[in-house]
Amino acid sequence: MSPRGGRPPGASDARERILTAARELFAQKGFQQTSLRAIATEAGVDVALISHYFDNKRGLFVAAIALPHDPADVLAAVADVPDEQLGSGVLRAVLTVWSSPGAAGLEASFRSAIAGDESLVRDMLQGLVLPQLHERVEQMSGDADRRLPLAFTQIAGIILLRQVIRLEPLTRLTVDEVVAALGPNVDRLLTGPLPD
Amino acid sequence: MSPRGGRPPGASDARERILTAARELFAQKGFQQTSLRAIATEAGVDVALISHYFDNKRGLFVAAIALPHDPADVLAAVADVPDEQLGSGVLRAVLTVWSSPGAAGLEASFRSAIAGDESLVRDMLQGLVLPQLHERVEQMSGDADRRLPLAFTQIAGIILLRQVIRLEPLTRLTVDEVVAALGPNVDRLLTGPLPD
Repeated sequence: MSPRGGRPPGASDARERILTAARELFAQKGFQQTSLRAIATEAGVDVALISHYFDNKRGLFVAAIALPHDPADVLAAVADVPDEQLGSGVLRAVLTVWSSPGAAGLEASFRSAIAGDESLVRDMLQGLVLPQLHERVEQMSGDADRRLPLAFTQIAGIILLRQVIRLEPLTRLTVDEVVAALGPNVDRLLTGPLPD
Repeated sequence: MSPRGGRPPGASDARERILTAARELFAQKGFQQTSLRAIATEAGVDVALISHYFDNKRGLFVAAIALPHDPADVLAAVADVPDEQLGSGVLRAVLTVWSSPGAAGLEASFRSAIAGDESLVRDMLQGLVLPQLHERVEQMSGDADRRLPLAFTQIAGIILLRQVIRLEPLTRLTVDEVVAALGPNVDRLLTGPLPD
């Protein structure tokens, strides 16, 4: 194989060093507590180079944990879904990403994050995924701080048992069949009555 | 520190060798495909010694993955729960075990099984946990082969996000509050209408 493109070797080396430093620091200190400056220092590069390669901290995080898709793009798909089906829409969007060809990296990140430092997954949910839905749920039915984490238990559970643990017959169900069976649970947690 | 008790060192060594061999073979080949004979051979002990220490393959599995409680005992708690609240009862029983002092080992097993070979968790669910509920669900509402795995997605999801990922505010909810919020989902999957 010949090297791709004309980028000088030093530059792509810097990109890899940034990613390595980011993985280490995100895993040690979590997404919120890790600064781009600290990553730049650890990687031995100027902080401006991080913005050049990854735009911002979220972009770097997505690249560092090898997400095949930015959560923002995935959740953009639910913008047109009616309120009472928002939960089903989010479930469908997440399952669709996990069923896509790029999902092997996502699964590997999920496994290693759980095995090592679960704060990566927690920060991704708390810092990237849930905030994007927060305002809509708050306006729609209130109590978004409690509804969203509860709703994501149903989503996390089907991802865990269908995509990671591969429990039968869940792996044989289509995305449509999973959404038909579990979507009402997610819808209920986002829009239906909750105790208290 | 002085050695505990009067058991000859060779014997307790054999018990540890059995556990080590069991973890390796269960991880490689899964619960169903691993024979006690293969474990005995790997551990260099007579197969009768396994029965002596662990009664049977299930007992050995529970010890190997360091479950603080046998799933059979945990699920015995739901025998008296009315059918329409069976899902809530199972959810409560599982959460109660995970909130008990012995759960650190359970969490560690769960994490390492997901990181390494997910077949340990899959076999525990498919081979030990779900069969204990199968007959009751089949008689109660039919379609147990589909209902039970679907219901366990909700249970697995709250365990993952509350106990392993520690997503707020889930960690601050009591078992009663979790059961009030998510129990209806599990009840619905075990006894309510399903699509198709």
